[in-house]
This record gives sequence, structure tokens and C-alpha cells, in this order.
Amino acid sequence: MKTLQPLRGFRDIYPKEKGVQRFIYETVQKVADELGYESYDGPVVEPMDLYINKTSEELLNRQTFQIKDKKDQTLVLRPEMTPTLARMIATKAGELTLPLKLFNFGLRFRYEAPQKGRSREFNQADFDILGGEQLITDAEILKTLVELFLSLGSTQRDFKILISSRDLLNKILIREGLSEKTIPSLLKIIDDVDKISDKELDSRLNKLGLTKEDYSRIISSKIKPKDSEYFDKLLDLLGQYGIRDFIDINLSVVRGLDYYTDLVFEVKDLGEIKRSLGGGGRYKNLVSEYNSKVNVSGVGFAVSDVMIEEFLREKNLLPEISTKKTQVLVTVFPDLLNESVNAVKKLRENDISSELYLESDKKLDKQLKYADKNKIPYVLLIGNEEKEKNVVKLKNMKERTEETLTLNEVVKKLS
Amino acid sequence: MKTLQPLRGFRDIYPKEKGVQRFIYETVQKVADELGYESYDGPVVEPMDLYINKTSEELLNRQTFQIKDKKDQTLVLRPEMTPTLARMIATKAGELTLPLKLFNFGLRFRYEAPQKGRSREFNQADFDILGGEQLITDAEILKTLVELFLSLGSTQRDFKILISSRDLLNKILIREGLSEKTIPSLLKIIDDVDKISDKELDSRLNKLGLTKEDYSRIISSKIKPKDSEYFDKLLDLLGQYGIRDFIDINLSVVRGLDYYTDLVFEVKDLGEIKRSLGGGGRYKNLVSEYNSKVNVSGVGFAVSDVMIEEFLREKNLLPEISTKKTQVLVTVFPDLLNESVNAVKKLRENDISSELYLESDKKLDKQLKYADKNKIPYVLLIGNEEKEKNVVKLKNMKERTEETLTLNEVVKKLS
Repeated sequence: MKTLQPLRGFRDIYPKEKGVQRFIYETVQKVADELGYESYDGPVVEPMDLYINKTSEELLNRQTFQIKDKKDQTLVLRPEMTPTLARMIATKAGELTLPLKLFNFGLRFRYEAPQKGRSREFNQADFDILGGEQLITDAEILKTLVELFLSLGSTQRDFKILISSRDLLNKILIREGLSEKTIPSLLKIIDDVDKISDKELDSRLNKLGLTKEDYSRIISSKIKPKDSEYFDKLLDLLGQYGIRDFIDINLSVVRGLDYYTDLVFEVKDLGEIKRSLGGGGRYKNLVSEYNSKVNVSGVGFAVSDVMIEEFLREKNLLPEISTKKTQVLVTVFPDLLNESVNAVKKLRENDISSELYLESDKKLDKQLKYADKNKIPYVLLIGNEEKEKNVVKLKNMKERTEETLTLNEVVKKLS
Repeated sequence: MKTLQPLRGFRDIYPKEKGVQRFIYETVQKVADELGYESYDGPVVEPMDLYINKTSEELLNRQTFQIKDKKDQTLVLRPEMTPTLARMIATKAGELTLPLKLFNFGLRFRYEAPQKGRSREFNQADFDILGGEQLITDAEILKTLVELFLSLGSTQRDFKILISSRDLLNKILIREGLSEKTIPSLLKIIDDVDKISDKELDSRLNKLGLTKEDYSRIISSKIKPKDSEYFDKLLDLLGQYGIRDFIDINLSVVRGLDYYTDLVFEVKDLGEIKRSLGGGGRYKNLVSEYNSKVNVSGVGFAVSDVMIEEFLREKNLLPEISTKKTQVLVTVFPDLLNESVNAVKKLRENDISSELYLESDKKLDKQLKYADKNKIPYVLLIGNEEKEKNVVKLKNMKERTEETLTLNEVVKKLS
């Protein structure tokens, strides 16, 4: 049978795995709500033009899921959210009260070789602040990122946020003698350095007239006091926020997207995970690319649920997740269906989450097994004897005890 | 600027509209949790083969968003969830404990002329029960549908569930003299009758050798006692569930999808909305279409967030939704940033959802306006005077009152 599999890089998500996704989504959404971010959303299919000259060329040409519609137009399954958000701000700038703190959790698509932590379809949380003062919003977005990882149960020992500034790096590179024209290529090399071979590194540096020694010297350039005035202020403010110890300055952080201008940052696992857990930066000019009359600077970051899950598993922080919220399973036996329906109705009316077993011809054993398998803590049993006496049996599945009660007593006990 | 708009039929969803979507999602998810449904998910992009000969031909050929990938394969943006679910059950039948109650809320796509209540991208809630006894699971799925609409705040006066049975309708049509071969075309006519012109109705009936009078007679055929044994039992059980009054038998309900076999049903608004609010039915053979060794009967329904929203608006049931959960806005003034950060930090540590205003050079008026606009109930104000006295001002934005307190007193008051 040929249609049994999802497309390559896509997954059927059974309840156990969906439970993990829900846990991540709900944790992240709670952080967004508590820190005052408003939720928004946008299309998962976008016109190609939205991304051209904005997102990185590599992302667009090699990693984007491009599709054609019936009219043979090229569309894109959205690889990231920021261009959509920038369009939204550019379109309605006049009606929006800035500054805005915005949050989205939704699907993203990348057309790349499927591997661990990289499926072609995944969910991503995006936090962004549009407008506001650069210093305060940079601090607030970093605070949000720290809060997100703390809310997942990790601590200062588990992760670090590496920050840099494209603007500052530019200045340093010019001081080191690089021409403005060479800088974008060098930034690309810095961003790729962990992914490419020594040979490729050599060859790409050669094209810029640089040696490996030049490269090492450039990368380890010291930030001079004058350069770092902004960083000093930012670090002070992060100290006030109580998160200074989560932050390191690291000039090798570049982030791949073309639209970042000033602050860039990423989250690094202090354990075994090599790839960055997520990151972001400031995009000073992106909104005005969509509407030259609107000049709103933004700063934001994105973290995927796939990376969060990998992180939680590595740290052993994933809680036991029950895929069902049911408190009581009510058994069903032939000729006693009405009594069982009546019991489940009464429980539900009293907001006790309950289920009727769905087959009246199955033995008690099988019904109990269903409760066990689904981690339902109580089974309410009505047999002929119970019916006659107008009582029910309540089994506690964990403690393997049971008691005979009236239905009202059950409601009182479990409410 | 040409890229400013989303694709035709797709929408940017600003916080206000997203707030409505979240309200609908959270209400529906709660119903799923309380009635014991487990959440699952699947890809939004599927191979064309998944749908061929399963979903309706009309849906597949005319209303499906078909796309081509880089290898020129035809893929489909999923128009509905049931085929994906059936594949999931067919693939892992051995590992799953049946009966299963499953819930998904996610994106669906239809390539149709965008109009009110019909965007090309929307969210749909799908509830399904796989396995179990036909009578009990039919009743449970109808109970779920009633519960869903009650949980949205509507009552028996607002909606009705019309039920029919394809199986029973088949029997009646044969008794009325129709050939087995004509029946699918006649079902299609019954399903389309509200959408087509009188002329088209005539012409389509003619092709089957029927007149309009035949059609009227067939549609109003009485169910004979022998036919309706199953319906009688079902209605009895729905009586036990306490939802009998929500249900009408109506043989003109067919539902468009090819895979329905027995029970079919839809929700009808008792007000002004003509189109069905959602519906579903039993699909006895769909799972085995994907794996002939697995014989699991399913029953389920789907309701879109677009139709729910239209229904809520018509009934005036949509509550006032605040897009921000923030309780306190902390003001920021030049040279007092540290004090403000300290205050917001303290509030957040005490689980009081708070925000720092993000621009230190803005006058108090503008900061208060931000709180008003975002419906933030309290503003915490620290000026030079407050700093000196080590107190803060707490403004109640609704009652337009203010008091001077220590930070600890604020925490105590708002916790």
C-alpha cells in the first residue's frame, strides 16, 4: 500500500508526542502572557516576494519549501515568521499603538535533509518587540529569553545566552583593515565556521585575501572601551533585571538572517547539544522595507519546539505527561447501559472529567486495562448488585482499593 | 509596493482577531479534555494519493489547494483531517489500545472563492472515536457535539443537530424503486439541493429518470418502524444522556464526503445562518482502505473556527477578550530606569503579570494611554518623589483612583 507514509520530513503526531508539544506550547504561551506579549498569527503560505532580499539567500534558495499553485506562481511555506510580522506592522502602522510586544507559536517549514532536531515541518515560538527604546527593549527581549528557559525548569547551569552586535563587529572589522565590501562574506564565514571543512574555510578566506591567522586574530579582537559603551549600559540593565550571569559577549555570534543590524544573540546549551537552541536580534530596517513611510525598529527571537524538546530530554526535564485528563472511567455492561450513562452524566455535570467505556460486551478486565493504559485514576463500576442497591463501586486504580458508595458520595469525594 | 498583501484567501491575524481564535481554541480544547479525548496531530502537507477515492471528488478536484514540490510531485494542503487520522490508525493499529477518542485542532485549506465564513486557510476542530460499539460511540459523539456548542454559551434555542443514516436512506431509496447505481448521484443531488438552481435540479434529476415530484416524495419518505430500530435505540440512549431534545431526524442530511456509511449529522443554526455549522458521520471502511488488515470503524465530526465565530457573533455570545494578560504597567522615566526595572522584577517574581513601559523619554500621559489602550488594570508609577520616599504610586485605571504604597504592599494587594 503506497500511501501509508507521510511525506519525507513530515510526521504523524500520536497522542504521546502531541502531549509533549502541548506541554511546550502551554509553557511558552504562559511566559508570553505573563510578560505582556499579545498573540498574533499569519498565513503559513506566503508569496515568494515577501522573502526576497530580506531573509538570507541560503535559506531562501536552498532550505525553503517552494511550491507552485494552480496558476504556476511560486509560493513559499513560511520558513520563519519575522517577514510576515514586519509586513503586518508596515501595513497597519497607523492603527497600532507602539511599542508592541508580540508572540506567535505556529508552523514553520524548511526544505532540508531530515535529521535529528530538523524535520521539515515544526513549530516555532517567536517573541518580538516593535518600537520602544533600543536599550530597554534589548534588555526586555533577553529577559524574555531567559524567562522562557527558566520556565521550562532549567537553571543557570544549563544554558547561556551569547550576545554580539553586528554594528560593533562591523566597526572592529573595519579597524582590522577589512573593506566594507568584504564584511558580509566574512560574517557569513563566521556564521558557517562550525559547519564547513578546514579546506573550505581556507578557500573562502583566500577569496577575501585573508589567512587563517588573520581570521583567528579578527575573531578574538578585544572590544575597546569606546566600542562597548552600549554593551556596558545593556549589561548594567541586565544586572538590574537579575540576569547578568546568564549572558556572555561573544563576537563569533552572527546569526544567519540578512536583516539583523545591531544586537544578535543565541542560546547555547551548556551540555551536549552543539547547535544553538534558538536566537534572534534587532532588525532596524525590515519594517520599512515593506513600507518606506514606516520606520519601526524591531527586536526578537525564535525557538523551535523541536530544539526545546531535545533540550528538555537532554536535561531530563520533561515531566510525565498524561495524554488524557479523564478522572473517572465508568464501566458498561449489557442491560446496564442506562445506569452507566446516568452515572457519567452526573459526574460530568459536576465538572468531574469522566468517560464511559465504549463497549458493553467487554469483560471487566478489559475495561480496567483501558483505565490502566490511559492512566485514568478511578473506575466507577455498576453491576447488577450495585444497581439493585442503588450504589456504585469506586476503584482507586493506583492504590488498588475499592469502596461502595452512592453516586452522590462519589461526586462529593471527587469534586 | 507589491508584496504588502497576503495571498488571496489568506489573512494576517492581528491580536484582536487572534484573541477570538484563542478563546475558541481554548473552549474547544477544554471540552476535548473533559470528555476524555486525546490530542493528536499530523502534517499539513500530504501526498495527493492519501485523498484519491476517499474524500469527495468535488472536494479533491475543485476545492483542494494542490501544489507541486521541487520534484514536480502533486501535494495537497490538507483540506480535512479524517484521511490523515485513518492512515495513523491503519499504520499503528497493533500498538494502539482501542477504543480511542481523538481530538485535533489545526489548519485546513480549501481552494475556493473567498467569501464570508470561507477563507482558504482556517482552523478546524476534529473529534473522532475509533473502535467501540456503534450505538454507544454514536451517542457519545453526538453528546460531544452538543457539549461543544453548550460550552460556547449557546442553548437549546440556538441550534439543532440533524441526523440521518446513509444506510437507512439507501434502503428507503431502493424501496422507492431507485437502482443501486443511481443512488450515489441522488445523494449528491440531496446534498447540493440548497446550492443549485431549479433548472440544474431539473436537469440532474432528469438524467436519473426522475421528476421533481418524485424527488419531493422520496425526500419526505416516512421511516417505517422496521427501518428505524437502530434510530429508536439511539434516540433512547440520547434521552439517557439528556440531549434528546437537541436532535432531529432529517433524511435530507447527506454530508458531502464519500467515506460516510451509516450515521451522518450536521449542526443547524436556529437563527440566520443558513450553512451548516459543522457535521460528521460514521466511516466504517475508511481505515481498512489504508490497511486491509485493519478493520476499525470510526465516527467523528468537524467544526471550523470560522463557523464558530460567525455563530458566536450572531448570538452575541463572544465575550470581551483582552489580548494582554498584563495586570500592572510599570512606568519608566529618565534616570529612574533602575527603580522601575526593580519594581517590575519584584512583581514578576511574585507571579503578578507585569510590564515595563518601553520608552523612558515619553511623558506620563503617553504611558497611561498605553495602559488604557491595552486594558491594563493598574499602573505603578515611580517618580523622583516616590524614589526618595522609597514608595510607589499605584493607579487603578478603571476606577481612576491612586494610592501611595510600598512595593511590598503592592505585592500583597495584587497577589
